[in-house]
Amino acid sequence: PCPAVRKFPLSLPPPTVEDERADWERALDALGRRLKPASVDALREAPRAVREGNFTATAVVFEEEGSMLIEPGDTSGELLGLAVDLGTTTVVASLVDLRTGAQLSVRSKPNPQMAFGDDVISRLNCAMRGRMRELQEASVSAINDLLHEACEEAGVRPERVYEIVVSGNTAMGHLLLGLEVGQLATAPYVPASSGPVYLRAREVGLKAHREARLYLLPVIGGFVGGDTVSLILATGLHRSRGLRMAVDLGTNGEVVIGSREGVYACSTAAGPAFEGARIKQGMRAKEGAIERVDLRDGRVEVRVVGGSKARGICGSGLVDAVALLLDLGVVSESGAMLGPEELGKEAPGWLLSRLRRSEDGREFLLATPEESEVEGGVALTQRDIRELQLAKGAVRAGIELLMRRLGIGPKDIERVFVAGAFGNYLRPESAIRIGLLPPVPPERVRFVGNTSLLGARLCLLSRRKRREAERIAKWVMHVELAGTTEFQEAFVEMMLFPSGGGGS
Amino acid sequence: PCPAVRKFPLSLPPPTVEDERADWERALDALGRRLKPASVDALREAPRAVREGNFTATAVVFEEEGSMLIEPGDTSGELLGLAVDLGTTTVVASLVDLRTGAQLSVRSKPNPQMAFGDDVISRLNCAMRGRMRELQEASVSAINDLLHEACEEAGVRPERVYEIVVSGNTAMGHLLLGLEVGQLATAPYVPASSGPVYLRAREVGLKAHREARLYLLPVIGGFVGGDTVSLILATGLHRSRGLRMAVDLGTNGEVVIGSREGVYACSTAAGPAFEGARIKQGMRAKEGAIERVDLRDGRVEVRVVGGSKARGICGSGLVDAVALLLDLGVVSESGAMLGPEELGKEAPGWLLSRLRRSEDGREFLLATPEESEVEGGVALTQRDIRELQLAKGAVRAGIELLMRRLGIGPKDIERVFVAGAFGNYLRPESAIRIGLLPPVPPERVRFVGNTSLLGARLCLLSRRKRREAERIAKWVMHVELAGTTEFQEAFVEMMLFPSGGGGS
Repeated sequence: PCPAVRKFPLSLPPPTVEDERADWERALDALGRRLKPASVDALREAPRAVREGNFTATAVVFEEEGSMLIEPGDTSGELLGLAVDLGTTTVVASLVDLRTGAQLSVRSKPNPQMAFGDDVISRLNCAMRGRMRELQEASVSAINDLLHEACEEAGVRPERVYEIVVSGNTAMGHLLLGLEVGQLATAPYVPASSGPVYLRAREVGLKAHREARLYLLPVIGGFVGGDTVSLILATGLHRSRGLRMAVDLGTNGEVVIGSREGVYACSTAAGPAFEGARIKQGMRAKEGAIERVDLRDGRVEVRVVGGSKARGICGSGLVDAVALLLDLGVVSESGAMLGPEELGKEAPGWLLSRLRRSEDGREFLLATPEESEVEGGVALTQRDIRELQLAKGAVRAGIELLMRRLGIGPKDIERVFVAGAFGNYLRPESAIRIGLLPPVPPERVRFVGNTSLLGARLCLLSRRKRREAERIAKWVMHVELAGTTEFQEAFVEMMLFPSGGGGS
Repeated sequence: PCPAVRKFPLSLPPPTVEDERADWERALDALGRRLKPASVDALREAPRAVREGNFTATAVVFEEEGSMLIEPGDTSGELLGLAVDLGTTTVVASLVDLRTGAQLSVRSKPNPQMAFGDDVISRLNCAMRGRMRELQEASVSAINDLLHEACEEAGVRPERVYEIVVSGNTAMGHLLLGLEVGQLATAPYVPASSGPVYLRAREVGLKAHREARLYLLPVIGGFVGGDTVSLILATGLHRSRGLRMAVDLGTNGEVVIGSREGVYACSTAAGPAFEGARIKQGMRAKEGAIERVDLRDGRVEVRVVGGSKARGICGSGLVDAVALLLDLGVVSESGAMLGPEELGKEAPGWLLSRLRRSEDGREFLLATPEESEVEGGVALTQRDIRELQLAKGAVRAGIELLMRRLGIGPKDIERVFVAGAFGNYLRPESAIRIGLLPPVPPERVRFVGNTSLLGARLCLLSRRKRREAERIAKWVMHVELAGTTEFQEAFVEMMLFPSGGGGS
């Protein structure tokens, strides 16, 4: 690793009448470098730090700004950083040993900004109505909580975390920093700043080491932010010879298509369905979540994260379930869940037995009460299917419009990367079956997990990757879809499910 | 001027669907530069600033760190800075228009740290006994007060002051920033830092523009700080072909001897007598202060600052008065003030009439009650003479030891600069007569006023001068006198006054 924060143990000669160099300059001379103080406190405490360890000390150097602080004794073994995926719906943090690159622990939790609205636009509107401070504090407290939990899990102190790298969409970045958002919420959707932001983490309220720095990945344009930069960085799309596509299935769905010749990116408001939110029995991809649904020997078989009984369904299970229901004819191309009368007499008994009615309308039982930890089992409702249609319609419309912009079709795409925090994997056949992805040979699809977190970790561990991320942000072409009639038309069309033939 | 803060008016194209650049990058593109935000607030407010002036805005650029903030409208006409001489006894501030270099106003006041002790050592001890915060706040409040007064006098707002440059000795610098001082108070007198310090002024409590920066001049070594760097910078000693000397008569008396081949500097604890403190009727060199004392036609004649009646005596008047009393034989070489009985019968009546006794011992009336605003007139006491002996003895001992170090005598010095805030001028003959200066031809002596303030102003107006100051600080050789027997011996010897012949 070549992180932006480094430690150098110092063994200083004590001052004498012949050698009356100041403490700070004594340390710099030992390092052979010129560095400014990381803050006035770093200067204030230098004499104490140098003497407390009897002139054995450690220089903590923030390479991005050429600044230093001095710690007493040799602390060079303790150098941690936190990589954060600041998602609209879910926040994930990974605690990393900056010397080895090892991940010590990883924690996630719902973004507490959910209380202010599910999607980024409603949160921006909320911020504009005078609640910016609350929104800002919500995301900060989420990161602080995760930092604390991740450190506890790893048995280390948060004061040893010297840098936090955050990857998130433009709105999440603005709300984390408390940047003015009025101009971002309305056309032409202009960010306050698109460059990377580097500042003292405590300036926004983050509670790691007192001098810890925050690095926020740069923005490509509009709502296409640092999470998309991470997506590209992690998949290497910008260095690919052939044409590739990457899709990040977050609450904002980002779509990227291109090669080293050029990359186009767009953002669509998918909603939180892929992360299990707004789904009646939806949940994040953690223990108890149905992550996979199969039909085997005329029996519905669910796979549950952790191998326990089912407690709900996560994004990958949702896609699998709907694909199955489409194949079974229980869900129509328009997304309607059929009742026993519409399915007719030829429908098998086991299938009919899983169809039921709740106060919310029709639903299909995925896990029976015996297979579940929850009363009545885990079912998929008509409304859940509508939510998925909105989500996949938005993402797929983005894919279609980008392909149209490039004048290409699905067959031209040699590889499709699917990123997201919706499960341990997503079955490519199911994603294609429901029309989330265009009809490509399934073997071309790779599930790459949470690339936003991965990109943050890459940037945490390597200044080279950070510079690469910054070049990506400037170089990738942003295609603004919001408010265009072209998008609205594609969206309405793509909300429908493909017919069984496998075509779009 | 080429100040470290500059303003650039911006006329930005408003964003469109085709030009969706972020606000910050839009401003940077207009400037053709890459700059980081001056703070997270600078980023937060960029969108509002850009729109408030309808895309006419002003970039405020902090050149020292390559950072920027954006102000609405065209404010490029308002760009102020404050130069501060942070003296141990007196604090002086000069408000400067950074575009033209013009001084708009200048204000001074006693250093409120006086309440914690007259000299730097007693203040450092005070700080070490847990009162650092009070000392720090005292110097900060003094600068804030002067800033406020200077702005009021000039009819401008303190929020338009973007940079504060402070020149002061090492202890004053440490106490302003709140740096640890334990190691500075005892041998080998090591500063926490000797480099220049550049930070946000509000970090130490200074209340100019919210983002204003503070630049503190670098330290040469030990107690020889930024004020001595200023002394050298302002007199050009470091560029002189011939050997020159500069003396700053502050509470710490600094002595510098050298040429462009090399410069030596030392610091001595002179006490505040030159600034009128610890003198019974002493005062700073302002309206009402006796600044000059003459004997004309057998009459003592005083010149008073502002031409008004006398209210007290300032440093230059003190030196003049003692020189006169030495010539008159009223004060002996050992510093004793003689009484009528010792002066004998040949003493003229007017002289005897001015000698009187107070509860503090003998005193000599300088300004009669009729010439004064104060009851009983303005007199010089035996104790005042002792204070002056301590002050001039310390400074002169420094001069002697530096000359000894260089192996030179007074005749080798082609020019003597005398700096200080003790009056509008100091009569060279008097300074030599009392032995404050060595016996050099009086025409070689130049009074250069407050060079600490001048150096601060030079550094405020020019980044080139700032770099020059930094080179001076590293290059000048510091000679530590404190605690050496050599100094103690010279000090005791130099406390005596020279005999009338003019020799040392």
